[in-house]
Amino acid sequence: MPIIVQKFGGTSVADPDLIRNVARRVAKTRDQGKQVIVVVSAMGHTTDRLVELARAVGDCTPEREMDMLLATGEQVTIALLAIALTGMGYPAISLTGAQAGIITDNAHNRARIVSVDQERIRQELEKGQIVVVAGFQGIDGRNETTTLGRGGSDTTAVALAAALNAEVCEIYTDVDGVYTADPRLVPEAMKIDCISYDEMLELASLGALVLQARSVEYAKHYGVTIHVRSSFNDNRGTLVKEVSGMEECRQLSGVAHDVNVAKIGLFDVPDRPGIAKHLFKALAAEKVDVDMIIQSWMRSGKNDIVFTVTRDDLPRALPVVKRVVGEVGAAGMDYNDHMAKVSIVGAGMVSNPGVAADMFEVLAKENININMISTSEIKISCVIEEDEVIRAVKAIHARMIEKQPA
Amino acid sequence: MPIIVQKFGGTSVADPDLIRNVARRVAKTRDQGKQVIVVVSAMGHTTDRLVELARAVGDCTPEREMDMLLATGEQVTIALLAIALTGMGYPAISLTGAQAGIITDNAHNRARIVSVDQERIRQELEKGQIVVVAGFQGIDGRNETTTLGRGGSDTTAVALAAALNAEVCEIYTDVDGVYTADPRLVPEAMKIDCISYDEMLELASLGALVLQARSVEYAKHYGVTIHVRSSFNDNRGTLVKEVSGMEECRQLSGVAHDVNVAKIGLFDVPDRPGIAKHLFKALAAEKVDVDMIIQSWMRSGKNDIVFTVTRDDLPRALPVVKRVVGEVGAAGMDYNDHMAKVSIVGAGMVSNPGVAADMFEVLAKENININMISTSEIKISCVIEEDEVIRAVKAIHARMIEKQPA
Repeated sequence: MPIIVQKFGGTSVADPDLIRNVARRVAKTRDQGKQVIVVVSAMGHTTDRLVELARAVGDCTPEREMDMLLATGEQVTIALLAIALTGMGYPAISLTGAQAGIITDNAHNRARIVSVDQERIRQELEKGQIVVVAGFQGIDGRNETTTLGRGGSDTTAVALAAALNAEVCEIYTDVDGVYTADPRLVPEAMKIDCISYDEMLELASLGALVLQARSVEYAKHYGVTIHVRSSFNDNRGTLVKEVSGMEECRQLSGVAHDVNVAKIGLFDVPDRPGIAKHLFKALAAEKVDVDMIIQSWMRSGKNDIVFTVTRDDLPRALPVVKRVVGEVGAAGMDYNDHMAKVSIVGAGMVSNPGVAADMFEVLAKENININMISTSEIKISCVIEEDEVIRAVKAIHARMIEKQPA
Repeated sequence: MPIIVQKFGGTSVADPDLIRNVARRVAKTRDQGKQVIVVVSAMGHTTDRLVELARAVGDCTPEREMDMLLATGEQVTIALLAIALTGMGYPAISLTGAQAGIITDNAHNRARIVSVDQERIRQELEKGQIVVVAGFQGIDGRNETTTLGRGGSDTTAVALAAALNAEVCEIYTDVDGVYTADPRLVPEAMKIDCISYDEMLELASLGALVLQARSVEYAKHYGVTIHVRSSFNDNRGTLVKEVSGMEECRQLSGVAHDVNVAKIGLFDVPDRPGIAKHLFKALAAEKVDVDMIIQSWMRSGKNDIVFTVTRDDLPRALPVVKRVVGEVGAAGMDYNDHMAKVSIVGAGMVSNPGVAADMFEVLAKENININMISTSEIKISCVIEEDEVIRAVKAIHARMIEKQPA
């Protein structure tokens, strides 16, 4: 019997009625003759509530104890879903991450799955059970509960689909699939029927929050087909899979934007080898994630270094940059925490050199100044002012996505 | 370094402030040079709330899934207490029942502890950690989470105290200890300084809800000294331990009462062998717990059988009794679900035959009719009408407990 993995996020299981809704959907798949493994997240805002409780009892929150605490959220949901399914006459059993054989490393709060011991799940499937697995959690080699970080339930689902050779990993969410732009900003945004892993990875890491980037990497590595779809209707969603021929998918996949961007510049940095290394090593030591970097050459033998970080990282980055400015003898520094990034993503880009020029032209026509540009084989990103980002997304979508042949 | 086990119930950890209060008390014990193992229950009404959620999603609540669900309650508390202790500068680690080596049988919802694997706890104590253990839960031989039934955290604490040879098992509660009567009914009730296991067992099973009866059995079996005390002050509470000499403890320990009593009578039952067996086997098959049984002989060769059950069991008991009345040819049946039981408990009873007579005299003076009587070596119980029970408790306490030499 074919195996299907279905993953439901926190908004899909936020209250008892929604849990029964999920149970009905799982039961329908079972009725279609499939073996079903269901992965669920914690109900609604449970995780936030638990984090608040932790902050209320102590000033420091040890990572191991946070994992002990947060893992309870998913454990509640799996038990409730198994109870709901049983009540509808469908044999079901809930399994914690540990019981489901999700073996991780010991990096609490951000553990990585190292293997899946599928024995218990196989046993339960053979007994005819629907298997309900706690997402987001696993167990390390010392019998300690670990969690995979925010959005980790997607990764749990993909890992189980890979280990059990499922025919598809369905990720249920509150939207119909992956869109060519955020539908809340661009009403003309179209659902993407199919997208490659690489394009989805770019979209995921560029701020399209539908799927966790790590789960897409995992799916790519193991060749798992992901189907992103709505838990509130039966519409076909978006398939994320290895795309063989150009004809299978649209040429341009979509426009993504991210407003969690801050820009930092160092001026008149002496042109000596090793200065960039010195700066970015110092930032890495403070765990600052640097995104785009631009170094512009001047005639004078001095240059500017400009880079972007998330706004959350800015307070940690600024003291480091100030120190480095003094150490290397730069003229000064500046920053702007109201920047945004707009990107166009598509596998067709590499064979179509006009895309970048088209994007710059669209932005120029809108009188939007481009601060920084970065490109890869399948995406072009521009850093612009935050208050221009919505206009930029709409214009790029209208001129470059809607106009191309479907 | 001596080991102390401290157990805090749900009311002692009901919110973040109370959890920090518990942490301060644990820290103080640590400062006194003790190794501390803390056992905690779920916060406040968490368990009730989880049961409600389960009922909201399904009509049937499989026992295994209920254990999966309910075990999360204690897991939240252990993480929060470990976080609170760490925040105060006291190294602490939380352990689930499974991690703490609480091995049980596989009777979900009412599991019994079969052994304690103390290796992990020993390791953590040797590292200087305060070990915070989830009460009420364990793991069976198939890696399944089990729970010990309501009040099971007391049993967890006593089992750990026994396995690790702790000098005392402190049970913290919202009263100062075990009293000679319920202080809410009898303001003159006195705290008992020390009480034997057998007397405590009688009090526990007679409705004094301070300690779970099974934990007292466990403590008796392993010779664990229990100290019942308040989590809100430093008063010395009640020691429950093996009492060697009469001089050590008061002659009468206390008055207990229980209003969860229903009485069922069968009239004119033919006097043939095997009828009682037939009746009580049929009741046992429906899982009805029978407490007191009285069979009164008549001259006519017929007799009455009267017995008590809890009020919760009455709906299951009545159809059985009606059926048996027909099968054995009795004249009829009757029941009363407004009965109560009042008991006096004390180790001195066996050597003092006047106690029973004194008790009957006190009730007679109060014009309280005794329906049924049962006695053991250390207790005398009378079944009376529910609306007379408070008067009975007060009178027995005043005439038999307050009057005796302290």
